[in-house]
Amino acid sequence: MAELIKVSAQSRSTAVAGAIAGVMREHGYAEVQAIGASAVNQAVKAIAIARGYLEQDEIDLAVVPSFTEVDIDGNERTALRLAVYNRPDTLTVEVS
Amino acid sequence: MAELIKVSAQSRSTAVAGAIAGVMREHGYAEVQAIGASAVNQAVKAIAIARGYLEQDEIDLAVVPSFTEVDIDGNERTALRLAVYNRPDTLTVEVS
Repeated sequence: MAELIKVSAQSRSTAVAGAIAGVMREHGYAEVQAIGASAVNQAVKAIAIARGYLEQDEIDLAVVPSFTEVDIDGNERTALRLAVYNRPDTLTVEVS
Repeated sequence: MAELIKVSAQSRSTAVAGAIAGVMREHGYAEVQAIGASAVNQAVKAIAIARGYLEQDEIDLAVVPSFTEVDIDGNERTALRLAVYNRPDTLTVEVS
């Protein structure tokens, strides 16, 4: 299992993007977790930025979001978990 | 081109999820746009919720985020554009 990249409201999106790019290069899969609107925004921006960082590696990214319950100091909080995959060539527009 | 689903900070994530599910059932592709942290959060939550709505249709979702410049009342703003695809079966964890 790749390590979980935890994003907070204070995280710099470029720093998170660098972390995502590193994990993707090494493992081909990353998991990003964010709690709250600001953290989720930073996380999604980071993934968009990481796509640029990984262009030269010929890696593109696709994300599957889900909810997960996490324990923060004894309190149950709902986090957004973003599973980050290599985007396959087949993932393109097929508008019907 | 599928219609663009514009999400604001005031959008209800379940309503947006319903819209995404409808467009995915009809077109197999959707585009979601959000400006600002609250709107991005609502959009990503909506996609996670839509995955549940589409389970019975045997549709799962994968998202490719990118930045786009949009004109809001004559001002250029950076929006997050979330391209939503049918998640292929091949998009699974291949941890190395």
